[in-house]
Amino acid sequence: MAKLTKLDDIVSLCKRRGFIFQSSEIYGGLASCYDYGPLGSELKRNVRNAWWKSMVQMRDDVVGLDSSIFMHPLVWKASGHADKFADLVTVCQKCNTRSRVDHLTEGAEEHTEHIDPELAAKDAKNLDKKVCPACGAVGKFSAPMEFKLMFQTEMGANVDDQMKVFLRPETAQGIFANFRNVLDSTRVKVPFGIAQIGKSFRNEVTTKAFIFRTREFEQAEMEFFCEPGTDEEWYKHWKEQRFQWYVEYGIKKENLRFRDHDPDELAHYAKACVDVEYKFPFGQGDWQELEGIANRTDYDLRQHQRGMRTINDWYENGRDLTKVTLKEEAEDYHKGPLSFFDDQEKKRYIPYVIEPSAGIDRSTLAFLVDAYDEEEVKGKTRNVLRFHPAIAPIKAAVFPLVKKEGMPEIAGKLSNDLKKHFACFYDEKGAVGRRYRRQDEAGTPYCVTVDGQTLEDDTVTVRERDSMDQQRINIDQVKSYLRENLDI
Amino acid sequence: MAKLTKLDDIVSLCKRRGFIFQSSEIYGGLASCYDYGPLGSELKRNVRNAWWKSMVQMRDDVVGLDSSIFMHPLVWKASGHADKFADLVTVCQKCNTRSRVDHLTEGAEEHTEHIDPELAAKDAKNLDKKVCPACGAVGKFSAPMEFKLMFQTEMGANVDDQMKVFLRPETAQGIFANFRNVLDSTRVKVPFGIAQIGKSFRNEVTTKAFIFRTREFEQAEMEFFCEPGTDEEWYKHWKEQRFQWYVEYGIKKENLRFRDHDPDELAHYAKACVDVEYKFPFGQGDWQELEGIANRTDYDLRQHQRGMRTINDWYENGRDLTKVTLKEEAEDYHKGPLSFFDDQEKKRYIPYVIEPSAGIDRSTLAFLVDAYDEEEVKGKTRNVLRFHPAIAPIKAAVFPLVKKEGMPEIAGKLSNDLKKHFACFYDEKGAVGRRYRRQDEAGTPYCVTVDGQTLEDDTVTVRERDSMDQQRINIDQVKSYLRENLDI
Repeated sequence: MAKLTKLDDIVSLCKRRGFIFQSSEIYGGLASCYDYGPLGSELKRNVRNAWWKSMVQMRDDVVGLDSSIFMHPLVWKASGHADKFADLVTVCQKCNTRSRVDHLTEGAEEHTEHIDPELAAKDAKNLDKKVCPACGAVGKFSAPMEFKLMFQTEMGANVDDQMKVFLRPETAQGIFANFRNVLDSTRVKVPFGIAQIGKSFRNEVTTKAFIFRTREFEQAEMEFFCEPGTDEEWYKHWKEQRFQWYVEYGIKKENLRFRDHDPDELAHYAKACVDVEYKFPFGQGDWQELEGIANRTDYDLRQHQRGMRTINDWYENGRDLTKVTLKEEAEDYHKGPLSFFDDQEKKRYIPYVIEPSAGIDRSTLAFLVDAYDEEEVKGKTRNVLRFHPAIAPIKAAVFPLVKKEGMPEIAGKLSNDLKKHFACFYDEKGAVGRRYRRQDEAGTPYCVTVDGQTLEDDTVTVRERDSMDQQRINIDQVKSYLRENLDI
Repeated sequence: MAKLTKLDDIVSLCKRRGFIFQSSEIYGGLASCYDYGPLGSELKRNVRNAWWKSMVQMRDDVVGLDSSIFMHPLVWKASGHADKFADLVTVCQKCNTRSRVDHLTEGAEEHTEHIDPELAAKDAKNLDKKVCPACGAVGKFSAPMEFKLMFQTEMGANVDDQMKVFLRPETAQGIFANFRNVLDSTRVKVPFGIAQIGKSFRNEVTTKAFIFRTREFEQAEMEFFCEPGTDEEWYKHWKEQRFQWYVEYGIKKENLRFRDHDPDELAHYAKACVDVEYKFPFGQGDWQELEGIANRTDYDLRQHQRGMRTINDWYENGRDLTKVTLKEEAEDYHKGPLSFFDDQEKKRYIPYVIEPSAGIDRSTLAFLVDAYDEEEVKGKTRNVLRFHPAIAPIKAAVFPLVKKEGMPEIAGKLSNDLKKHFACFYDEKGAVGRRYRRQDEAGTPYCVTVDGQTLEDDTVTVRERDSMDQQRINIDQVKSYLRENLDI
């Protein structure tokens, strides 16, 4: 089926058809930053909307959020990011290139996400035998050191309001920081979730593979709060839901798999973690993380509760916020401000959290790669993106067969009418066969053509992308036909 | 009509009902940053979608884009931001507070947007007679100096890829930088536009009025490229379109007006600029900018073309990029890489640009404020948000009258069915009258109630928010009734 197996082909298709461009290309490009073009921005919007529909709109037990990228520095202190969100790196003393210690271990390239420096330390053995990936020198590495992954900037113009702030490295902490606000302003009760989509930023040591790993990226995260003891059941629920989401929107099952994290790979606060992996066309087909689903226990809420309880000490004693050690929490922590009171069971606890965390950019890439197909049609190659209708950037195209006899007017009117309901493309240039092919390559599910017969009996042809079958229907029925078949 | 005239009341409503929270509230809050809660995130999504529908989906001559926040530093060099995007400030030598020079002029508070330091210089006269807004000291000001508005950070881990980058202060430059890419990858021809929505960042000296002016904010910008000579006509077109957009989505006409910029207020590259202003409830009703529509001429494309032509010099001679003076452009600039060739007229030119630039946060605030109403109903005050259906966060609520006799099951099934199509809220708690009031306050256009009669004849009541009229319809017709009335 899919013939597209090289990343270069995808990059080239993306540029040629306006899906994805290198950022700042006119100035030679900015490494690791990408811009979504006319088709790409629609595709990405659809991926976001499909996630939101499934995770928020369709659920009684999940609400939405849209928190800011800048947050108070104490958020990152309490979450552990300010101190621990770093990669363990080493510098080749021959060529001066910095490498992640965990990437120098043979066969370790699969595990490409950030891992805790404490966990990475196990890879620091035998550095004197390791090879520099940049210059090939052996054993020229410096002692391992931590490289902080959060971008930092200065906010405020005056002495009293100026502070160092970070660009968030994940959207999740914006959710934890609003747990109390959401409880107080809505009718939700545990178990419930808070979901959001937004940009995050990590100053990765090495970026990778087009939009797969970039320093600026978009996340879709949901924190599901549940009673301790029910967490394993909810973990199972979300694991299944999230796998199913990719399948529902058209990713082939054989290109998806779960990978459970080994116990020694888990972050110290996580009870369990599983990745949904996709077989990306890097090299010979490379299973890489699309999404992680983690049981984060009550770690985050407890950390923030500790932070809230010690904040006055931090402020009043004027301590350097980057050097504060969190105080031991009180024994009654389960009654603190971030606890939940179950008024049925009359008990109070800090909820456990199950987190499905998806990457919007990498799932957009997976949808693109998975939809791509080439086939022989009458001795010629047809390139087609077999997108699920909800994911397809353009839902329908409308053509006049020729640019005369009033056909453009009829087609234009139909197109304008359809545009009220979904993204529709009007095209009157060139041979109709070539126009079909252009829409196949954009993944457009339906093409509607106004031709000579339309002038006689008000029927048009509707061509389906995958089968290329055409049928004639009355022009008045086109809208309802498409809305039904597109499920819009 | 609208009784809500104090900003504090809006802030309080927003917090109580989960529209908008102060960021990082559990740590005392982060000035000028806000989080959108369950209702607010849906509201903001709807504002974005209404803009996208009108500006991209419904138009044959506008395409979408989603460019990255980080861009190559040369983009900001060429655009002029690196050197000129600053406020002219002065420091009170008594209390150390920094103020914008243009804000010290009496009656100048209306003009609250960033203005060019060269233009602000005219306000620097008589600083020895000006009063410090923080401490009241007279004439204690330092000599004016420029305060840069772009946030800066460091990207990259290695010597060879490390660079200072900025957080974009506007989304527009991402569009100009992709002008060539869009021309080459689509079938657009001048006149056409490129539109995008995204976060921008400005380290404002003074922030203001809730989400009205914040350091992190969301913009919806469109650059419309047209032939020089047709620019005034297109300026007029977009001015009308944009005003109409606010009216179409429910803002009262009497709360909207145009304000043309005075010639001496225009940026040096702009030929004309007009603000769409809304009468915000700050103080006694304060006309403030919702959106600016500018005729930017060919300034931006010419600047980037100059940047592209001199880039090798910048790189090869290793000059400090922050100190480069742009070279004089060649006489044949209209034939450069960012020119457009009109193959009908056989001529080549750099297009002029009309830019409608809207703020998503401040228009969300305007939609909220404008929809707010209080009325007396049977001796009690009813709070209602009279949102346009497309803007309303929740489209319909479904209630069982009581929590027994199978009503919750019937209502739950209906709610789940409606959720496939739009945001729908199921609520079975408390008296039905209170449930109606809660939905009025959230701006939900329709409430559907399953009651005793439903068990007999399959009819339900549908209550309309504004009139509070109820009618009985068959449960099978609810979906089509709502979709028609909501136009979804």
